[in-house]
Amino acid sequence: MSAIDAIDVIRTKRDGGQLSPEQIRWVIDAYTRGAVPDEQVSALLMAVFFRGMAPEELAVWTQAMIDSGERKDLSSLGRPTADKHSTGGVGDKTTLPLAPLVAACGVAVPQLSGRGLGHTGGTLDKLESIPGWRADVHEEAYLAQLREVGAVICAAGNDLAPADKKLYALRDVTGTVESIPLIASSIMSKKIAEGADALVLDVKTGSGAFMKDPGTSRELARTMVGLGEAAGVHTVALVTAMDRPLGRAAGNAVEVAESVEVLAGGGPADVVELTLALAREMLAGVGRGDVDPADALRDGRAMDVWRRMISVQGGDPDAPLPQPAEKHVVTAPATGTLTRLDAYALGVAAWRLGAGRARKEDPVSPAAGVTWTAGVGEQVVAGQPLLELHTDDAARIPRALEALEGAVGVDTGEQPLPLLLDRITA
Amino acid sequence: MSAIDAIDVIRTKRDGGQLSPEQIRWVIDAYTRGAVPDEQVSALLMAVFFRGMAPEELAVWTQAMIDSGERKDLSSLGRPTADKHSTGGVGDKTTLPLAPLVAACGVAVPQLSGRGLGHTGGTLDKLESIPGWRADVHEEAYLAQLREVGAVICAAGNDLAPADKKLYALRDVTGTVESIPLIASSIMSKKIAEGADALVLDVKTGSGAFMKDPGTSRELARTMVGLGEAAGVHTVALVTAMDRPLGRAAGNAVEVAESVEVLAGGGPADVVELTLALAREMLAGVGRGDVDPADALRDGRAMDVWRRMISVQGGDPDAPLPQPAEKHVVTAPATGTLTRLDAYALGVAAWRLGAGRARKEDPVSPAAGVTWTAGVGEQVVAGQPLLELHTDDAARIPRALEALEGAVGVDTGEQPLPLLLDRITA
Repeated sequence: MSAIDAIDVIRTKRDGGQLSPEQIRWVIDAYTRGAVPDEQVSALLMAVFFRGMAPEELAVWTQAMIDSGERKDLSSLGRPTADKHSTGGVGDKTTLPLAPLVAACGVAVPQLSGRGLGHTGGTLDKLESIPGWRADVHEEAYLAQLREVGAVICAAGNDLAPADKKLYALRDVTGTVESIPLIASSIMSKKIAEGADALVLDVKTGSGAFMKDPGTSRELARTMVGLGEAAGVHTVALVTAMDRPLGRAAGNAVEVAESVEVLAGGGPADVVELTLALAREMLAGVGRGDVDPADALRDGRAMDVWRRMISVQGGDPDAPLPQPAEKHVVTAPATGTLTRLDAYALGVAAWRLGAGRARKEDPVSPAAGVTWTAGVGEQVVAGQPLLELHTDDAARIPRALEALEGAVGVDTGEQPLPLLLDRITA
Repeated sequence: MSAIDAIDVIRTKRDGGQLSPEQIRWVIDAYTRGAVPDEQVSALLMAVFFRGMAPEELAVWTQAMIDSGERKDLSSLGRPTADKHSTGGVGDKTTLPLAPLVAACGVAVPQLSGRGLGHTGGTLDKLESIPGWRADVHEEAYLAQLREVGAVICAAGNDLAPADKKLYALRDVTGTVESIPLIASSIMSKKIAEGADALVLDVKTGSGAFMKDPGTSRELARTMVGLGEAAGVHTVALVTAMDRPLGRAAGNAVEVAESVEVLAGGGPADVVELTLALAREMLAGVGRGDVDPADALRDGRAMDVWRRMISVQGGDPDAPLPQPAEKHVVTAPATGTLTRLDAYALGVAAWRLGAGRARKEDPVSPAAGVTWTAGVGEQVVAGQPLLELHTDDAARIPRALEALEGAVGVDTGEQPLPLLLDRITA
């Protein structure tokens, strides 16, 4: 019999007490090893949902999750490293231009990414719409690519915080996802384990975000910044708007196309603004605050890194992107200022058109998605095209249109959020 | 995919909503069948711990637990039936004299009992100290005994609220035992399924009880009375003292001996008073409030039923009871009024002497236990014997004495609880 008992741990948290570092390390380790069963940990997670965790408890909890695997050592690269994490949004393709952009400024970007689930897209799903591109990169190739290209976006291996993999799967089926300490520790355990020197967090807020209101988004941002700093990683969070989607496209190939526009010095203003803001934080985080990333967009250096980054992983940066079999246009309902373009509705529409998946094992369509001709605050004209739906299967269009009911508003008096709501530091 | 989803059920309760009757029936049934896994139900139980259940929710929950098995039909007996449940205490042997007493007054008593766990004794463990007595009674023999003898105390079969068996085992390992709705539904699902017309609940309060304070005990009592009435069973609860143990003995054979004294018209005043109070409630519950059970104790009718009840189940009511190999006397620490005789301490001492078990599969010693010569409010003389420890194994005595440290107090100014604190009806 162990000196630490799972029931004691559960009851301590349940009754509002603070778990000791020994209790936390024991329970995370024992759960990862299978020595404590799911039903005890789900009860503990629900108690955490109600009772929360003190900052020092959460720091130990997160460290224990990191220690369930290995924390990568990138010191052999001989150059600073910085990473970004977004809590996920609709049309949020910023990782695609951001990684090569920061690399072009001399800072290596080790970006281990995931796939999409539900109404938000996944970075790997987007990149896989590039013919030939592969998400899986071996450990050695990964370091070589970071050294030679400066940026890698690839799938995370199983050695990164395996406790999180198990805890996340459990939370998913036990109604314990929506807990700030559990969300923060899940994200930060993986991000810290990636081994970057600095980290910028893009915490989305609004209908298309996981956190719908700015207050909760700020709390999550503060919690994650605290965890990053506690683990010795320079961490800054930007709280950014997700009441409407980002850019002019949500889907897979359509987002790659938009990212390439940004890398070519064009692209939608909001994507450019957010990409540059995130890049500046990453550069400042490793002491390169004097470098202006806008230069690297203008002079093509970021595009050069992008092309190398895609090629090294088997992709052809010049290949035409997949095109949808079917397109369907939705026109503007009135003439005036577009005041509502609901992020969640557009995300669900893109998902239903085939861009996203309902279950982890589902495939996604590279060509599916939604594009739009105007963003919030811009003028639209009644009867002119506003949205374009892309899909491989026309039968998917009616349900996508259903999702879009009420999603568009002209001169409604609504006030869209500012793109950058807040900047949170330690 | 089912129309009702376990995650939705968990989230509804987690967020303070009320579960629909369909959700409750579905989750209890699916869990009992193994279609919903432990980790989802433990998360739900923890959410119930924090959010509670509305009376109408809990009534449906309890009915769903009953419906997981069969509710016994005792109408063929042709006589009223009444049953008792105690939330458990130290030295609480009242079931033993009570069942034959009420049967002697013309009301059948179908008493399905359990074994002890921890510091409180189990009715079946006590009766098994009678040579030859068997706890297992077949369905047919059970009805025949109720018809012919009028009282049966035996082990509950697996057909009685199987959902409770599974839920209780899960609560036990997930820190979700201490929840009034979960306790109340666990007790009442089994008791209602037993099929009696009337039910009296003895809800203990004090150090030796599961509920340590009168407020919580009253709340549990009110909740259970509500559930009984909702299921059409006339239900009354007495809230009774468990700050000190009941009677003059805690253990197995020593409690049988004391019960026989009560049935013979003697015995400790508190055991007699509580037994009669419970008997009066059971009789009144089936419209026999005019019958005075004290007569049946005085004239030997209750003892006659006892002897038949024991004999039918293989026991020899005349056989000498097991005697302990070792006895150890503890003397009174001072002369004066005994104001403290802590129920919990005495319960733990009896348990450590061998009368109880730590795990379900452990055996118990029939001869082990504690007896005492004076109850709270009575005079004691310094140096005179106060407690007698009984055990098969002298090595157990030191740890029992440890449990008793501080358990006895003379003229401390403490006010013991009244034996009967409250009577709670619908």
